[in-house]
Amino acid sequence: MSKLTDVPKRILIGRALRSDRLGETLLPKRIALPVFASDPLSSVAYAPGEVLLVLSIAGASAYHYSPWIAVAVVVLMFTVVASYRQNVHAYPSGGGDYEVANTNLGPKAGLTVASALLVDYVLTVAVSISSGIENLGSAVPFVVEHKVLCAVAVIVLLTLMNLRGVKESGKLFAIPTYVFVVGVFLMIAWGAFRGFVLDDTMKAPTADFEIKAEHQGIAGFALVFLLLRAFSSGCAALTGVEAISNGVPAFRKPKSKNAATTLALMGALAVTMFCGIIGLAMATNVHMAEKPAKDLLENGVPVGGDYVQNPVISQVAEAVFGNGSFLFIVLAAATALVLFLAANTAYNGFPLLGSILAQDRYLPRQLHTRGDRLAFSNGIVLLAGAAALLVWVYGADSTRLIQLYIVGVFVSFTLSQIGMVRHWNRHLSTEQDPGKRRHMVRSRAINTFGAFFTGLVLIVVLVTKFTHGAWVALLGMVIFYATMTAIRRHYDRVSEEIAAPEGPTDDSVRPSRVHSIVLVSKIHKPTLRALAYAKLMRTDTLEALSVNVDPAETKALRAEWERRGISVPLKVLDSPYREITRPIIEYVKSLRRESPRDAVSVIIPEYVVGHWYEHLLHNQSALRLKGRLLFTPGVMVTSVPYQLESSEAAKKRARRRQEWNAPGSVRRGPVEKRAKEKSGKG
Amino acid sequence: MSKLTDVPKRILIGRALRSDRLGETLLPKRIALPVFASDPLSSVAYAPGEVLLVLSIAGASAYHYSPWIAVAVVVLMFTVVASYRQNVHAYPSGGGDYEVANTNLGPKAGLTVASALLVDYVLTVAVSISSGIENLGSAVPFVVEHKVLCAVAVIVLLTLMNLRGVKESGKLFAIPTYVFVVGVFLMIAWGAFRGFVLDDTMKAPTADFEIKAEHQGIAGFALVFLLLRAFSSGCAALTGVEAISNGVPAFRKPKSKNAATTLALMGALAVTMFCGIIGLAMATNVHMAEKPAKDLLENGVPVGGDYVQNPVISQVAEAVFGNGSFLFIVLAAATALVLFLAANTAYNGFPLLGSILAQDRYLPRQLHTRGDRLAFSNGIVLLAGAAALLVWVYGADSTRLIQLYIVGVFVSFTLSQIGMVRHWNRHLSTEQDPGKRRHMVRSRAINTFGAFFTGLVLIVVLVTKFTHGAWVALLGMVIFYATMTAIRRHYDRVSEEIAAPEGPTDDSVRPSRVHSIVLVSKIHKPTLRALAYAKLMRTDTLEALSVNVDPAETKALRAEWERRGISVPLKVLDSPYREITRPIIEYVKSLRRESPRDAVSVIIPEYVVGHWYEHLLHNQSALRLKGRLLFTPGVMVTSVPYQLESSEAAKKRARRRQEWNAPGSVRRGPVEKRAKEKSGKG
Repeated sequence: MSKLTDVPKRILIGRALRSDRLGETLLPKRIALPVFASDPLSSVAYAPGEVLLVLSIAGASAYHYSPWIAVAVVVLMFTVVASYRQNVHAYPSGGGDYEVANTNLGPKAGLTVASALLVDYVLTVAVSISSGIENLGSAVPFVVEHKVLCAVAVIVLLTLMNLRGVKESGKLFAIPTYVFVVGVFLMIAWGAFRGFVLDDTMKAPTADFEIKAEHQGIAGFALVFLLLRAFSSGCAALTGVEAISNGVPAFRKPKSKNAATTLALMGALAVTMFCGIIGLAMATNVHMAEKPAKDLLENGVPVGGDYVQNPVISQVAEAVFGNGSFLFIVLAAATALVLFLAANTAYNGFPLLGSILAQDRYLPRQLHTRGDRLAFSNGIVLLAGAAALLVWVYGADSTRLIQLYIVGVFVSFTLSQIGMVRHWNRHLSTEQDPGKRRHMVRSRAINTFGAFFTGLVLIVVLVTKFTHGAWVALLGMVIFYATMTAIRRHYDRVSEEIAAPEGPTDDSVRPSRVHSIVLVSKIHKPTLRALAYAKLMRTDTLEALSVNVDPAETKALRAEWERRGISVPLKVLDSPYREITRPIIEYVKSLRRESPRDAVSVIIPEYVVGHWYEHLLHNQSALRLKGRLLFTPGVMVTSVPYQLESSEAAKKRARRRQEWNAPGSVRRGPVEKRAKEKSGKG
Repeated sequence: MSKLTDVPKRILIGRALRSDRLGETLLPKRIALPVFASDPLSSVAYAPGEVLLVLSIAGASAYHYSPWIAVAVVVLMFTVVASYRQNVHAYPSGGGDYEVANTNLGPKAGLTVASALLVDYVLTVAVSISSGIENLGSAVPFVVEHKVLCAVAVIVLLTLMNLRGVKESGKLFAIPTYVFVVGVFLMIAWGAFRGFVLDDTMKAPTADFEIKAEHQGIAGFALVFLLLRAFSSGCAALTGVEAISNGVPAFRKPKSKNAATTLALMGALAVTMFCGIIGLAMATNVHMAEKPAKDLLENGVPVGGDYVQNPVISQVAEAVFGNGSFLFIVLAAATALVLFLAANTAYNGFPLLGSILAQDRYLPRQLHTRGDRLAFSNGIVLLAGAAALLVWVYGADSTRLIQLYIVGVFVSFTLSQIGMVRHWNRHLSTEQDPGKRRHMVRSRAINTFGAFFTGLVLIVVLVTKFTHGAWVALLGMVIFYATMTAIRRHYDRVSEEIAAPEGPTDDSVRPSRVHSIVLVSKIHKPTLRALAYAKLMRTDTLEALSVNVDPAETKALRAEWERRGISVPLKVLDSPYREITRPIIEYVKSLRRESPRDAVSVIIPEYVVGHWYEHLLHNQSALRLKGRLLFTPGVMVTSVPYQLESSEAAKKRARRRQEWNAPGSVRRGPVEKRAKEKSGKG
């Protein structure tokens, strides 16, 4: 199936690089932080802006609610981080939300979480890349003028990198992430210094704009709804927090403790940056509107469709560092880069989750075995295709894409936390040690609060965002859920159908004799080899079979057969319509009819060639025949390969393919250890 | 490879219709004429207009040369028809131009003709459909306003019809072709009656227009060049004349005589229609220009880009029958329909030529066997894709496409006629009977004149049309030629590599013992069946092999193996990286290293499922493993299929697919007869 696409793929992706087996090295905290936290940390690049955008609906005066919303987001962040610290301790195998929900709440909850996470991965790619493009665009206008094109180009680039099997290098992640974090902190510090100490007035580029409120004088229920919507948007800052809980096995020992520390560190960094940016935005008078073209006024006149609204982080950086200054450019570049890295985490997370789901037979089996390049490739292409589609449909507009984003995150947060409560309940019912019990009760309290709070947020998000796009995410989840249920049902049905009945032997599947048939078209080395092998098999009967499509050729074949004195009898079938498959199938069926308890072994000499286009030139009749024979009961089909010289090329290619590294290896941790842990549990 | 595209294809194309075997019925002349002549007859719908278009470059006054050009086309048509009557008698097997050139001038000339014909088939589709759309557009303006879209839609429709395996019914062809012929004759007769008897003035819709000459007062060499170019364009009337010579076996007996008569009839009809239309165009004062938007003036003002220049046949019909009259509409519809049928002939001719080329190993072998649906489908999709591309690139403008068309036709005409001269020379050198000799000398004279004349036209076409588009056709021919040469070279190289050495046995390919290995993942019915079959084979050793990807599963497997008391020893390979393929390959290689003269038989239990999506869920590891094992020398791979319940669906589908009728069956004639003729010659 992949044959025809193989060549363009190889041209684009190049040879898989030979690199040393990875997974043997464990991550220290300082590397684990950027590897797992690029997604949640990068979300501060867009989350503060989303809060302002929603508030702007009620006009610039509503901006004074933004600190309260920031406080709410911080409380939520602390809750989620505290909750996940419990997960990390309870599930050091790195099962993540899916495993927690599946184990404690049953397969349906597990599958719901899995669907939510799959949708989330797609949205991580779409949102992060769109936002990255917008940030890059604040420094390089060309990029924002060709937003969709550039976003799709980045998706294609990431896809090719991951298909090529690029190693997710911790160090590669560390640099831009740390540059970004340091840059944001520098900005906050320098901004605070200029504001409080120097008493400078820092003005954002949009400081003098006015906002035309979509709804003037909003109050009461409408105001509450608006604030809740703004809060929902701010929750975008929490996306990706759960990543660490999937990656515990990749940490150095003590794994759980290190993971928990990294989680806390990440939470602290994220909330500081989030609040700092909101604060600076207030201080520099950033003005943003959901529909800038008509609601953003410059000297009383709408700015119009050509106006590009830069992200809040870039507006603040411009105010603090100065437009076009070195630090401004560095921060814009680092922001874009860290967002692209965040997108890349989805490329790693998707196959990881896929392999766990495959183990539970919700996805095709081959995703389970590691290093199965084809399966990973299909997953990566699926992820990239879905993300590119979203980017294209939503015009690479991060604000519109974020509306879809947060539902999935909170579905998995909530179910995971509920699962954790059940987990502690179960353990408390057996645990006797009062010290451990106290610890568990505390953990359960944290998870209960987490479940309650994230559940509340989920409801808020659903209510405030449903018509704004959350329904698309829900639809995506339903599709994944239905597909995976169908796959599982298929596997279950098949496994029931083929289950071996008890008892030492089963007569119904045991034939008594074997007729061997060697298919012959001409006498050449492959045919001679097939005949020699067939003789060695010592089956009950052996004959050579040819189909007469051209009387002259058949005559020549018979003559050569006799001249060479080949001891196997040659039978020729007539084929008035120059068909090959049908006469052979009919003959095999007639043999089976004569002696229904016997099996027929069909031996086919096959050329092995090195290139797909050569493949098109050979074996096509053999392939089709094999396909048909497999449907005929009581038949086995043997290929006797004859390796042509060109097959060497394909052999090398196959070997190289095996040395390919699957994306996500680093975050999965070493294989042997995981396998042992699992088997220890089982 | 076709698995993934199978479902959309089936949705679009539907089930192949069960229809009675065809090819058993031979065509009477009255049916053969429309089947083979829809292409040449339909070309009178555009050829006269092309002559006028070229002449218009020198202004409307140059139109008075058109009768002379018509005379030249008539002489050429008589020459070609007379020449091909010789071909038909000499090659009753219907080899056509390719066979004639190949037999008499050698494989390079043959391949050149084949390339020219393949390009021609593509252009037949593109030109006929574009012209058909233009004719339909003269009655239905919507069609001409969305020319490219409509043309591509017709291509898609024809493609689906042919993929579906629609029977090329003689009667279906007969009706529109005869309606068209009768309509044109009626128009000529009624026009002549009105003109000469009633002395009516018939005015074409463009009668009052003026033409701004691109080159005023053209004379001398430039005039000769222009007239030659006009003549080249008029030669479009000759396209498709060779079709009958390919189809001799489809005629009733006496085949050659009937074919020759049909050929003559077709030539007579075509020239009459051609001259009649040119004459009527003169009488009704049709004005056409190559670039109507700026060179066609109405009251001294250019008509502009919105003006649609209707084909000459429709303008004449309007003048004779009146605009919107019943006969005008019928003729426009019949013209469009006969042009679409002409396009359909390419869908039939392409696979026919492909099967002959495959026999000579210039194209993949599978094209040779009949009823190989997949191979035909690929050819049809290739043809349709190339034609659609041309239509799109050239904006479905028949005038621009015709520039490409005529080169290929005359390449094959000329080479075929030269081949015929050689043919007669060869026969004359052995023939003694003076009566027959006289006949042959006469035939040779005709073919010599034909070769000379068509060769001259080829040069004229090349010189006058090269920059106008003929280079594209030449490029297409070069690509086909190079591809086919490469394929032939590959087959020759392989056939040399695998040629069996002389002597009754060959020790180098004969192993001494066979080790059998049954691959086992779990104990279920497919595994038990594979074990039972393997035991029946009575090879020297037999063991079951499993790969340990999950220690718990492996433990369970071992326990069940013992519990069931399976007599075959079970060997388990370790796989720290959860791979399956590599450990097995390594193990097989180690067996081969231990005893290099032994063969290894790997037996794989395989599920057989009914739908492509189920296939994605099973056998993927087995497939990949089989692929790798085939590259390992000294190995044979046996599939022991286990048919799941759902496989019934696939079985039925495969059976239906076999009952499909390949396009072009009618024109190929009955199979058995052709096969016999061929074997008789061989």
